[in-house]
Amino acid sequence: MASPDRPSRGKEPASPGENPTPGEALVERVFALLSSFDSENRALPLAGLTRRTGMPRSTALRLARQLTDVGALERLDDGRFVIGLRLLEIASLAPRGHGLRAVAMPYMEDLFHVTGQHVLLAVRDNHQALLVERLSAHDAAPVRFRVGERMALTTTGVGLVLLANAPVGVQERVLQDFVAGEGDTTIRTPEELRRSLAEIRRGDYAVARRLDPAAPRTTVAAPVRAREGVVAALSVVAPSPEFDPTAYVPAVRATARAISRELRETEAAG
Amino acid sequence: MASPDRPSRGKEPASPGENPTPGEALVERVFALLSSFDSENRALPLAGLTRRTGMPRSTALRLARQLTDVGALERLDDGRFVIGLRLLEIASLAPRGHGLRAVAMPYMEDLFHVTGQHVLLAVRDNHQALLVERLSAHDAAPVRFRVGERMALTTTGVGLVLLANAPVGVQERVLQDFVAGEGDTTIRTPEELRRSLAEIRRGDYAVARRLDPAAPRTTVAAPVRAREGVVAALSVVAPSPEFDPTAYVPAVRATARAISRELRETEAAG
Repeated sequence: MASPDRPSRGKEPASPGENPTPGEALVERVFALLSSFDSENRALPLAGLTRRTGMPRSTALRLARQLTDVGALERLDDGRFVIGLRLLEIASLAPRGHGLRAVAMPYMEDLFHVTGQHVLLAVRDNHQALLVERLSAHDAAPVRFRVGERMALTTTGVGLVLLANAPVGVQERVLQDFVAGEGDTTIRTPEELRRSLAEIRRGDYAVARRLDPAAPRTTVAAPVRAREGVVAALSVVAPSPEFDPTAYVPAVRATARAISRELRETEAAG
Repeated sequence: MASPDRPSRGKEPASPGENPTPGEALVERVFALLSSFDSENRALPLAGLTRRTGMPRSTALRLARQLTDVGALERLDDGRFVIGLRLLEIASLAPRGHGLRAVAMPYMEDLFHVTGQHVLLAVRDNHQALLVERLSAHDAAPVRFRVGERMALTTTGVGLVLLANAPVGVQERVLQDFVAGEGDTTIRTPEELRRSLAEIRRGDYAVARRLDPAAPRTTVAAPVRAREGVVAALSVVAPSPEFDPTAYVPAVRATARAISRELRETEAAG
């Protein structure tokens, strides 16, 4: 699978009036425009695209029209733009996204029905985790993360598992940037984080507690391994304090191992 | 939601040596390159990108590198390119993809566990259906379609429901193009297809039978409605002849209605 360690990208908008050199700047502009959308802004008028990218109105309109022509954007009846199905079609071929998900899904289903809690699958992308799949019941206590969204490596169960198994360089960088008390978890200092990562490697699972009094949560997470090492993390997230996390550790670990085995068999067959 | 009737796009590769005019041609080239990947070719070397796009090697390499820089592609250790997580992140914001899926998923889970069969959710995109979600058990008889893949409107249960509820122009166009006997279903002629569409509208559900002797299948499908009309189709696919499709009609219809109601509530709230 692809390395999760490509150089990090800036998401700063291009400065207004900047002159695009054909080619390089245009690919960046295309992705700056596509990155204008977020979960609070799934539909944007031209003015929104202009404001969020810093592009001149004419440039934003031309790009948006071209992206609509290829199906990467779609246009609503009211003139606003939304992300199009063509991108879903292409993105579904990402080995670290839907490819992994296709193998993991039946096992996640099993875990979901045994536990009745949220089941999450995430991969690492540089210094963040990205949620690839989430199964939730109708009546489950809401969790903040949606599929395709980024999560911190230091404050989530899947993130901690991914961080504990990341290259030393990534770990050191994250430890360096760690802000004490961030994310309202039980890990408050870089020293505690370092200790936690060592424990996670030793036990091959993580327990993370979110202390937010409005919605306290406990997560049990375990690594998913392909031939090249840890490629994903699986977790069960449940409301505290009703939930005794130790009860789910064997189920989460066994399911993560089942997914790992099938991933390796799939790789061997491919 | 966006109209599923944008003009259809060609997927022909650019002719070799063609000179890109900056802007327009480049957006097309970016998507020609991203469209080189398919489910049999999730990882492509530079030579594969060159061959599949018809682009000069230098152009393909430059574009692939720029796409890797923004995370739209990722590069494997062996030098091959794959679709990157950045596209999954952007695509997850498509209202007709993950937006719809997020609402539908818990209900699809319910249907999956009541029936134990494949549960599919698809939307129409021009003259095809696109599979947005599929739930399948470990031991389910394999179905051909994967998430993000296109399906015919005339040979699948979800496709028939979407077609029966499409604008007259789309229906006439599809009827015109219909090749008798295509897809090995019980609908063999344009007249039979026309009659089936009328029946589906009357009954508000479809039963489709695939006759393939190696893997006979029956599908029960029903429409999902938002405020602007039918936006998706939900189905249960099960092996024939073990499966009596009439048994699942009420469950599929009730689940499609539950998703529809929640979609309208979500729209009203948004």
